[in-house]
Amino acid sequence: MLRLQPPDCLRFSQASSYEASYGGGEANVAVSLAALGDNAVFVTKLPQNELGDGAVAALRGAGVDVSCIARGQGRMGLYFIEKGYSQRPSKVLYDRAASCICDIADDDVKLAKAFDGADWFHFTGITPALSNAVLVQLLRMLVYCNVNGIKVSCDLNYRAKLWSREQAKSAMTSLMEYVDLLISNEQDVADVFGITAEGSDIEGGRLSTEGYRIVGKRLIEEFAIGGVAFTMRESRSACDNGWSGLYVTRDAVFKSAKYDIHVLDRVGGGDSFAAGLIHALASGADGQFAVDFAAAASALKHTIHGDFNLISEREVLALMGGGGSGRVER
Amino acid sequence: MLRLQPPDCLRFSQASSYEASYGGGEANVAVSLAALGDNAVFVTKLPQNELGDGAVAALRGAGVDVSCIARGQGRMGLYFIEKGYSQRPSKVLYDRAASCICDIADDDVKLAKAFDGADWFHFTGITPALSNAVLVQLLRMLVYCNVNGIKVSCDLNYRAKLWSREQAKSAMTSLMEYVDLLISNEQDVADVFGITAEGSDIEGGRLSTEGYRIVGKRLIEEFAIGGVAFTMRESRSACDNGWSGLYVTRDAVFKSAKYDIHVLDRVGGGDSFAAGLIHALASGADGQFAVDFAAAASALKHTIHGDFNLISEREVLALMGGGGSGRVER
Amino acid sequence: MLRLQPPDCLRFSQASSYEASYGGGEANVAVSLAALGDNAVFVTKLPQNELGDGAVAALRGAGVDVSCIARGQGRMGLYFIEKGYSQRPSKVLYDRAASCICDIADDDVKLAKAFDGADWFHFTGITPALSNAVLVQLLRMLVYCNVNGIKVSCDLNYRAKLWSREQAKSAMTSLMEYVDLLISNEQDVADVFGITAEGSDIEGGRLSTEGYRIVGKRLIEEFAIGGVAFTMRESRSACDNGWSGLYVTRDAVFKSAKYDIHVLDRVGGGDSFAAGLIHALASGADGQFAVDFAAAASALKHTIHGDFNLISEREVLALMGGGGSGRVER
Amino acid sequence: MLRLQPPDCLRFSQASSYEASYGGGEANVAVSLAALGDNAVFVTKLPQNELGDGAVAALRGAGVDVSCIARGQGRMGLYFIEKGYSQRPSKVLYDRAASCICDIADDDVKLAKAFDGADWFHFTGITPALSNAVLVQLLRMLVYCNVNGIKVSCDLNYRAKLWSREQAKSAMTSLMEYVDLLISNEQDVADVFGITAEGSDIEGGRLSTEGYRIVGKRLIEEFAIGGVAFTMRESRSACDNGWSGLYVTRDAVFKSAKYDIHVLDRVGGGDSFAAGLIHALASGADGQFAVDFAAAASALKHTIHGDFNLISEREVLALMGGGGSGRVER
Amino acid sequence: MLRLQPPDCLRFSQASSYEASYGGGEANVAVSLAALGDNAVFVTKLPQNELGDGAVAALRGAGVDVSCIARGQGRMGLYFIEKGYSQRPSKVLYDRAASCICDIADDDVKLAKAFDGADWFHFTGITPALSNAVLVQLLRMLVYCNVNGIKVSCDLNYRAKLWSREQAKSAMTSLMEYVDLLISNEQDVADVFGITAEGSDIEGGRLSTEGYRIVGKRLIEEFAIGGVAFTMRESRSACDNGWSGLYVTRDAVFKSAKYDIHVLDRVGGGDSFAAGLIHALASGADGQFAVDFAAAASALKHTIHGDFNLISEREVLALMGGGGSGRVER
Amino acid sequence: MLRLQPPDCLRFSQASSYEASYGGGEANVAVSLAALGDNAVFVTKLPQNELGDGAVAALRGAGVDVSCIARGQGRMGLYFIEKGYSQRPSKVLYDRAASCICDIADDDVKLAKAFDGADWFHFTGITPALSNAVLVQLLRMLVYCNVNGIKVSCDLNYRAKLWSREQAKSAMTSLMEYVDLLISNEQDVADVFGITAEGSDIEGGRLSTEGYRIVGKRLIEEFAIGGVAFTMRESRSACDNGWSGLYVTRDAVFKSAKYDIHVLDRVGGGDSFAAGLIHALASGADGQFAVDFAAAASALKHTIHGDFNLISEREVLALMGGGGSGRVER
Repeated sequence: MLRLQPPDCLRFSQASSYEASYGGGEANVAVSLAALGDNAVFVTKLPQNELGDGAVAALRGAGVDVSCIARGQGRMGLYFIEKGYSQRPSKVLYDRAASCICDIADDDVKLAKAFDGADWFHFTGITPALSNAVLVQLLRMLVYCNVNGIKVSCDLNYRAKLWSREQAKSAMTSLMEYVDLLISNEQDVADVFGITAEGSDIEGGRLSTEGYRIVGKRLIEEFAIGGVAFTMRESRSACDNGWSGLYVTRDAVFKSAKYDIHVLDRVGGGDSFAAGLIHALASGADGQFAVDFAAAASALKHTIHGDFNLISEREVLALMGGGGSGRVER
Repeated sequence: MLRLQPPDCLRFSQASSYEASYGGGEANVAVSLAALGDNAVFVTKLPQNELGDGAVAALRGAGVDVSCIARGQGRMGLYFIEKGYSQRPSKVLYDRAASCICDIADDDVKLAKAFDGADWFHFTGITPALSNAVLVQLLRMLVYCNVNGIKVSCDLNYRAKLWSREQAKSAMTSLMEYVDLLISNEQDVADVFGITAEGSDIEGGRLSTEGYRIVGKRLIEEFAIGGVAFTMRESRSACDNGWSGLYVTRDAVFKSAKYDIHVLDRVGGGDSFAAGLIHALASGADGQFAVDFAAAASALKHTIHGDFNLISEREVLALMGGGGSGRVER
Repeated sequence: MLRLQPPDCLRFSQASSYEASYGGGEANVAVSLAALGDNAVFVTKLPQNELGDGAVAALRGAGVDVSCIARGQGRMGLYFIEKGYSQRPSKVLYDRAASCICDIADDDVKLAKAFDGADWFHFTGITPALSNAVLVQLLRMLVYCNVNGIKVSCDLNYRAKLWSREQAKSAMTSLMEYVDLLISNEQDVADVFGITAEGSDIEGGRLSTEGYRIVGKRLIEEFAIGGVAFTMRESRSACDNGWSGLYVTRDAVFKSAKYDIHVLDRVGGGDSFAAGLIHALASGADGQFAVDFAAAASALKHTIHGDFNLISEREVLALMGGGGSGRVER
Repeated sequence: MLRLQPPDCLRFSQASSYEASYGGGEANVAVSLAALGDNAVFVTKLPQNELGDGAVAALRGAGVDVSCIARGQGRMGLYFIEKGYSQRPSKVLYDRAASCICDIADDDVKLAKAFDGADWFHFTGITPALSNAVLVQLLRMLVYCNVNGIKVSCDLNYRAKLWSREQAKSAMTSLMEYVDLLISNEQDVADVFGITAEGSDIEGGRLSTEGYRIVGKRLIEEFAIGGVAFTMRESRSACDNGWSGLYVTRDAVFKSAKYDIHVLDRVGGGDSFAAGLIHALASGADGQFAVDFAAAASALKHTIHGDFNLISEREVLALMGGGGSGRVER
Repeated sequence: MLRLQPPDCLRFSQASSYEASYGGGEANVAVSLAALGDNAVFVTKLPQNELGDGAVAALRGAGVDVSCIARGQGRMGLYFIEKGYSQRPSKVLYDRAASCICDIADDDVKLAKAFDGADWFHFTGITPALSNAVLVQLLRMLVYCNVNGIKVSCDLNYRAKLWSREQAKSAMTSLMEYVDLLISNEQDVADVFGITAEGSDIEGGRLSTEGYRIVGKRLIEEFAIGGVAFTMRESRSACDNGWSGLYVTRDAVFKSAKYDIHVLDRVGGGDSFAAGLIHALASGADGQFAVDFAAAASALKHTIHGDFNLISEREVLALMGGGGSGRVER
Repeated sequence: MLRLQPPDCLRFSQASSYEASYGGGEANVAVSLAALGDNAVFVTKLPQNELGDGAVAALRGAGVDVSCIARGQGRMGLYFIEKGYSQRPSKVLYDRAASCICDIADDDVKLAKAFDGADWFHFTGITPALSNAVLVQLLRMLVYCNVNGIKVSCDLNYRAKLWSREQAKSAMTSLMEYVDLLISNEQDVADVFGITAEGSDIEGGRLSTEGYRIVGKRLIEEFAIGGVAFTMRESRSACDNGWSGLYVTRDAVFKSAKYDIHVLDRVGGGDSFAAGLIHALASGADGQFAVDFAAAASALKHTIHGDFNLISEREVLALMGGGGSGRVER
């Protein structure tokens, strides 16, 4: 999607210009993985116009393999974001109805090419909500992954403006069969699967690790998933967040360090967590390292403008090693 | 529509921000009339979101009466424009499918309120192309004008991406019955009604006054219109245009002075010509003054960023009086 | 006034450009009321030049009724503001001597038109300090309000550069007879009326509710005012403020919730409090709701660039309802 | 003066920011001389606030000796400029009433220090129009120059908003006695002294060298001036000007080359011509070289943003030597 | 190189920011070829720091194959450019001494990988001037091309600040043996090989086709080159250039259409001509089409900010087909 | 050095422009002293090009005496800085190899002129690391100071990229003989002299006053220095720092107030501390006042963009007097 944002925390009503960048769930994960040094192939369909060209160029510039992006008729999905400040929350205005991907077809997704050499596939819950055509292609890819032993992760990412809870539950439940790693926040799990943790107050910013652990275990059991990871955001204000992650497996629970963050841009925080987790797990890290890596990577995302987490592995490791004091690197 | 334009003549592929303003055929005419000191009521339907609020605020700030703008579901029409330079032409990328106005209904158009005290109604050929619902409301308004003796002007404005020539011809022909003043450029007349003037080469920038006169006469006869006005643009490059107007009535032909213009922004040039002509004719000016006023007003539009012609009557008169030398006004 | 501010917290000495907006006590209240959904008529006099046009357009765009703004000779009042940061305070440089309003006369203020349908009139202590002519017109308006049962509120707003404490005391004392609701901070009450609360240290940021209560009661008794409201700012740094309100009536004391604010722009904070209080009281709210609404509305003002509090009633209610956690609204 | 200009040829009504720089007749000449390598002492009075500090810093940074600038109460003179384009003229909105210099007094002007080592004194016709106090100080300086053999040049610069033609004629006539070199355009000579050249049409952009020559001779005879120089601007549009100079002495007439200029910023064009002429004449150049140098220097001024002509002597000589083809200097 | 340019035609002395982009002879050709739809592999060495990363990302985003860019110690080459206007020429300030590429070694240039599938190799006369190490690698590549039947083009591009004419002549003469197509302007041929055409006045902007033809023939004979192409720039001012190309082969002379260009940015004009010529010739076009294509492509370059010619083949063909009138493409 | 910084906390990889300013250890101290009202002469060598001109103009504009700055061949030192945020540290990329000053020679440093009337000389540990030629000139100046009774202060400022610890220790040890006041942070003392304080954890942000005291005493004894001052930074994040100073003399230890700072720009913090200390001590202040003044001045530096501490003595005193609450100064 093309992301348009008034500069300098201006309100929409004050904007005489918009900062433009590109973003969106899976694209963010792909860019993040590329920045961490992984080979990331992005599969989607974009309009055959200058905005589509811009998205392709942005992804290619960021190191993502764009050779599997189909192009066609239709419009570019857009979203407008007004950045919040202190007690004023950020606002997102989606304008992605009838975007190009909604008509995606078999010809647009070259499975063999897209998965050539792949060991991991990631998607978010936004994608199946876009259209039936998208859902069909997603299923094709999931089946391919299952057959070929490619690991699958899913970020639940419920968007109430795209589909109802019932629709989401039905679709996502059927997709869980293919998923090895489920990533979510508590809110999305509650919205989609109706599973809640006691003792948490999401809106108020108090989160219960124990509650998450229980929710995670239930998901693992119910859907036979290998692991469930949660991002835990304590929203104190639009400027200050607590941020940590929890990774629940069948046998263990790993809790990351918690970061108190001055928020420059929180959009894409969950995606950067997913990318960090995938990067670590795919390279054989243990659960504790993986969730620590994911939390540190995504903490740093909050300090970067735009959807993309332009952070190297070296920088994530530096933060994990205690380098969050902000000393100047000369 | 929300207009988004890369700054400084950057190409779309270079843009990391977009200048944002509002514009669109009838809106431009309304703002232009308000700037010239007229009461201008704008009738449309805009989305009930922050972008719709922004459009309303922009129009209200410019002095347009926004009390007849309906609000509702749906998206804001957008257009992206890449400003050309020298041999590189400007590019416009429309993204207005399914915009809010497409669902406009009887409840959204309060005829009595909108036309209270009105003596002139203006529309463009873009409007009936948007949807059948829009066409229906336009017809309601045209009938109301006919019944109540309100003059009607129409800017032909053919947009090939909105409908075919056949569709345009059929619809516009039926609407001509209500029109007192038709405004167009030669290209649009050729596209919509298939009427062309010999001896002109539009693309090459050579225009024949005699040809326009003949076309005008034919339109007047065929559709029993009171008058036909043409904008005559000699496109030498994206930076340099010749610009003049021709106003043909049943009895006479009035040709304006021609302006050699350094183009800052040519979008809305035709709309500002229409507004200038309406302003002059509605206040009783004769044909020569009216076309001279319209040409001068719209020449000045080319020197102003954005769709809106933010020019006062005093400034138009100054240019007509010979003040185009660019001396500093202190 | 035209407000000119170096961008990005630059010092005056670093500025090669100024962000331009419009503001000023009563204008801010009018815009805030319009944003909250009220009909707000602004009465003033502005110069008949482009800067005056700009102020009118800004107010009209924000939804304020500008039909009672007189235009005339004279200059536009200006103020330059250097935004502070952390230990560095903001600096305001006024340049409003001999501004257009100073010559305001009977012809410029159409009482019947201005107050047609009005139920509330608001002014600040800056206005009578500008010139005797302004004071005369203010008195005309106050008398009109008294005669016609229009409620009157006054924000004390003492400006030492405009008049001495003695002048202020004399004038403001005589005006109190017309005032139903007095709004102030402790500092202004002390400066103008010499009434102080024990136990507060304004500069140091410690404020005593009890002290304010006593001061409020004394004002109510001395001037027979219906109510007195205080904004209570704890200035910890240019970036961090505590913010709350207190509303004292003859019978009761209402204390609002306190907000710990990251300050984006604190100018106009008091005006937005006044507008919130007027909005709530004029619509029949009780004292507790009114002061809570005013405090929440003005807390949000601190998160918005410029003098104007561009916040809707819905947003204020959301904050009052606990929504200050900065979660993204999608 | 502080100069405030909307960016990018925006109209005042479109400006949400202003570019800020400093300028003004004599200041421009001083900066231009410093850029050409001369020692330039600027004598004025500026307010003791941040805006005054900014003006001093700008002049000092540009190499002007600011040790004779007095500081005091009062406001900074301002001017707002809307840059024109093509047929739309630039607009200047002065806001310099009651600026600090109007109260200048003997203590503020240290004659011996200001003129220590000086061989030339320049002033413009704007200065005596500001206030009687300014006129008194100007006279003190002129007398000092006369007594000490310091050459005096005057740029006539008539500003109708500061005084009437009668006031200007009376004051300037009395000052001519001290002037060795008078600089003007035809318009100012006509406005102030009522002397016009036949065969020129200033507004229409046609200028007659012969007419200027006659006017120059009349001025030399009437006021016993050593020489008179004219800038000759052919204003074709706000973007295109013809530009040349004429230097008339008792015995000869020197006409410069004419430059066809794309205008980036024409403000200060006359001041840069004056500086070029002074620089050349003060260093002993003959009349032809001097007027050629002045014309070339001021032609280059039109290609530079702001009032100041930031051009070196080397660059002026390069243009005089035929280097106006715009080849890149690598 | 990192290109740093003050915005808005500001002088270096006025700049408080620099626009940043990447550019340089061969990089510009590579990007231009990628934009025209060709596979372009860029071989160079860049520093292993964030500036090097930025250059790689910019090239990759533009579609260039960056897999053969070596990384290492050393600094990023920089150049500062002050854009000229009208009579004021642009200024370029190189700061590329000791840039990373100067130490390029055999390990940095993987011949087999770089030329895998290649049919054309292009270099400029800047490259061998950088260091002996660079010259050695260039020779390795040229020999490889000769052996493997890869066509070689060379843009003469003499830079006096990098080496003397004698050094350039010696080195370039020895390289000519490998070159199939030499591209130059008349100045560079004169500087490097001492071959001049009579009847041309480069500085004055008058160019003689006949002179170029003779020079071309002499070069073809002397160095046994297949063809010589010239860019012919008529520099009227920094804003206006005439622009055309001439392509001389052993048997024929092809002259392109001439474009009168409003110059937005002329840097990279020669590189875009080279790219256009290579694109056309490599795809089998005849000489006339090739030089017309090259001239049109490079004319369009002058309308685009930055070094890179971001123009598609379709756009070049549109201009060749007469579409230079600047009509808006909707 | 020319300092180039992406705007708005953007990463290098996101920058399409850089904010440009000038800075560097001794330059920062000179500007700070000038802002505090002192006469500051800056001795250095800058390139004879536009970047050198810009540096001179910036310093002159800021009030520094630039008459002793030599000009010559060579390049301008540059540094690129990416501003950090929260857990993301700032990054500095130096590009100053082979800058102009490295070739400084006797002719470039006019001792008598530079020290005419001087009572204090300040240098940093960066200077002798640049080249042997620079070290030689520094020694000439130090000897001159010793002979003429001019006080000498040195800020240790170790830069690992310029020389090794061994080189630094050797050179700085020999220079200590001339130094009256040594300024440092604990890290630099440890790096250069191998002297560490127990009980401090610099990276973790915990600092021990007692440790610093001991280190100071050891330095005083070992090198017979009059006093040693330390800046004590507690780096909590890139946005939040604790900041204070310690001044150790032979007889006493003075500890400043500690400031909790929101960091706008921490570069130059140490330089502003040095300037504050010099300003206070040179004007005869006692040790406690001096360290309090230095700490307050440098706390304010953190709230100002760029290297330069543009703060007046009045502002420093206001903060020392308790005015850090951020109340608006009107």
